[in-house]
Amino acid sequence: MASYCHRRYVSRLFQNFGKLQPKSKGQEIGLSCHSHKLMLYNDIIAQSYAGGFHILPIGLRALEKLTRLVDEEMQAIGGQKIAMTTLAPESLWQTSGRWAAAGSELFKLMDRQKHQFCLGPTHEELVTKLLANIAQVSYKHLPIKLYQITRKFRDEMAPRYGLLRGREFEMKETALDTYNGVCGAYNRLFDRIGVPYVKVSGATGIIGGSLSHEYHYFADVGQDSVLLCERCGVQMNKELAAEDGSLPSACQMPAAQCDLQEQKGIEVGHTFYLGTKYSSPFKAVYMDSDGSTMIDFHMGCYGLGITRILQATVEALSTETGIRWPSLVAPHQIYIIPKKDGNRGEDYLAAAESLSDSLTQRRHLQGEIVIDDRMNLTIGRRQVDADRLGYPYTIILGVKALESPALYEVVETATRETTFMSIDQLMSLADQIQTI
Amino acid sequence: MASYCHRRYVSRLFQNFGKLQPKSKGQEIGLSCHSHKLMLYNDIIAQSYAGGFHILPIGLRALEKLTRLVDEEMQAIGGQKIAMTTLAPESLWQTSGRWAAAGSELFKLMDRQKHQFCLGPTHEELVTKLLANIAQVSYKHLPIKLYQITRKFRDEMAPRYGLLRGREFEMKETALDTYNGVCGAYNRLFDRIGVPYVKVSGATGIIGGSLSHEYHYFADVGQDSVLLCERCGVQMNKELAAEDGSLPSACQMPAAQCDLQEQKGIEVGHTFYLGTKYSSPFKAVYMDSDGSTMIDFHMGCYGLGITRILQATVEALSTETGIRWPSLVAPHQIYIIPKKDGNRGEDYLAAAESLSDSLTQRRHLQGEIVIDDRMNLTIGRRQVDADRLGYPYTIILGVKALESPALYEVVETATRETTFMSIDQLMSLADQIQTI
Repeated sequence: MASYCHRRYVSRLFQNFGKLQPKSKGQEIGLSCHSHKLMLYNDIIAQSYAGGFHILPIGLRALEKLTRLVDEEMQAIGGQKIAMTTLAPESLWQTSGRWAAAGSELFKLMDRQKHQFCLGPTHEELVTKLLANIAQVSYKHLPIKLYQITRKFRDEMAPRYGLLRGREFEMKETALDTYNGVCGAYNRLFDRIGVPYVKVSGATGIIGGSLSHEYHYFADVGQDSVLLCERCGVQMNKELAAEDGSLPSACQMPAAQCDLQEQKGIEVGHTFYLGTKYSSPFKAVYMDSDGSTMIDFHMGCYGLGITRILQATVEALSTETGIRWPSLVAPHQIYIIPKKDGNRGEDYLAAAESLSDSLTQRRHLQGEIVIDDRMNLTIGRRQVDADRLGYPYTIILGVKALESPALYEVVETATRETTFMSIDQLMSLADQIQTI
Repeated sequence: MASYCHRRYVSRLFQNFGKLQPKSKGQEIGLSCHSHKLMLYNDIIAQSYAGGFHILPIGLRALEKLTRLVDEEMQAIGGQKIAMTTLAPESLWQTSGRWAAAGSELFKLMDRQKHQFCLGPTHEELVTKLLANIAQVSYKHLPIKLYQITRKFRDEMAPRYGLLRGREFEMKETALDTYNGVCGAYNRLFDRIGVPYVKVSGATGIIGGSLSHEYHYFADVGQDSVLLCERCGVQMNKELAAEDGSLPSACQMPAAQCDLQEQKGIEVGHTFYLGTKYSSPFKAVYMDSDGSTMIDFHMGCYGLGITRILQATVEALSTETGIRWPSLVAPHQIYIIPKKDGNRGEDYLAAAESLSDSLTQRRHLQGEIVIDDRMNLTIGRRQVDADRLGYPYTIILGVKALESPALYEVVETATRETTFMSIDQLMSLADQIQTI
């Protein structure tokens, strides 16, 4: 059987094959956001068409980690993962009334038998129909917590900012849970990602329902405005305040004491309490404890923009020249640079490989170590790349790494602090690195 | 922080909420295949529309395991995983000549700006364009091994047999590797799945190229016929033999010695050597070692039908009444049934929970244990369910489980052998169970 612990070399990584060709003027439109540029120019993503992006190897590693993080938090509250079809029959969207309401944002297509479908932007209809098809659900089974992380589609009029506002995106949806349970899981999820966020009251829009909250990251390129007052505790989307006509009085305190601030936010999550809006037309019911009454499910739906979160965290954390990731989500944790040397280059590379093998014996670091084997480049030149791609730790093998006992130069990317460490110190640092 | 090792109870699992409603006559059409029935009636999948299926929680656990298996084998040969867009612009399919050639099997749609797209059934155009956009790929970077596992679409005229021939399916594609390298990985993958398979010469069809092999599982419901002769070693798709006009002489030996057999096969993988069929029209080139010549990439593409493999293994392994999975892919490994007892039922359940906690301390068994807590049902009734769903091991906690020392009744589903084990014996069995 093959061994599944492999050394990873920078020279083989896809993003180092070459620079992307300069974009033509047409493609530059909308390329005004920092994270979008960083992700394009560092081969994290590549444009397929306006608003559609391929996720390249480094980006997909980060996306898969984020997905596992969501899986952990959802399964901690008893969520069960499913994967529904991408195509949704028109008839179901007619039943909910959304076929017309969604308008031109819906991608529609017809099959060879002339049946109409849409590419699901969300899946309330499909999940409600799924539940409606199950006979004899009992009150004992409630709450049912189903979720999926699948690709969604929206024919955006003006796609821009890469994954922040694209036409294909990965989204996580949950249906039918108790409202507060999922909000709790989302709070824990965003805490673990570690980028400051705010939860505000939101508008229900076309999805509908009677209660709604949004999770936002703060960013100048955000499409939303959130209103926050530390004194009275108001946190709401400006859209909601405008809808209510309550904008002037969003604050619950006398005007003189109010400290209402407006900030730009990127919406990364949205929860809705739907009540029976979907279950009623689809006749999705359960049997009550009396053994005879059939009751419409009370539903909630809970969206997380997974690809959007990925780019929004990069937008929030990155420096002018370098990508920064939430540490759990970073595609690789450790970047090893062996010294270039006319005579002893091979010794430095061998020491780097040996160090990589030692670190990889820690199960949580499997796949997390890359060796920059471009031995024709100086340490400094390669450090620039390490910083640009945002590996959390860089380990430089210089002259002291070949002495006995060996000393390794460790740079923590977030703080730019440099420390010389023995192998034991390095291994205990390694043990503290959290991965998912 | 929440704990991420959870007890899993059968009463909470989605597939035990109730039986699916009987299908209407229209939906029964094509429901003639054993694995399709088993998967529908046991809530592994659910039909969304004709040819489109939701993957339900148990099914998705199996599918995610199969995906990890593919990831392991691809990364063992240096494969780098990407995720390309679902929508592919018409212009690229015009460049390759496939827009017309694919005909009505292609789902086509138009966006609000009247641009035409198709839903990719395969992604040769997109991946070639991606490579063509990278300037200055050097011969040193070859071979490049990119792969993706994403959802694909085909407007089947007559979708049938569930995931075996659906309109949405998960497929793994690799591009640009050396042909033999990927075939080696596929052999290892199919060996690890453990269902007998055959690799035959195949036709190149609409994808094109000059060399092609197919991987087949043997099954009566297979859509293909494969010709095998043990004496001369011929292994080919009958379609290819017919194409060549070589059918009468497929065997390389005198007719009297030939032992050509025809068997039905389900095609679960297909490899193509494409040469420059796509790279040439897309001008996807690399710089040769002389530093000045630009050369068209020689490409291969390598498809695995992931959802099809999932159902095809069930088709191949299952019994008349029960699902059987490849052991690595089984959704859960261990099913615990505590005895029903008027007085001591709670003691049996507590012992089952304690056993589940002990087993879950083995990291490789996290998430792999379910407790059948339906304490109103007899052991026998619950064993029927365990067998029906194909959990590889069932542990029954009867009277001896409450004695000291405790003895557990372990049933291995594949052999139906029953053994009484001490906790130590049970833990060493547990250590031998492989998971992914």
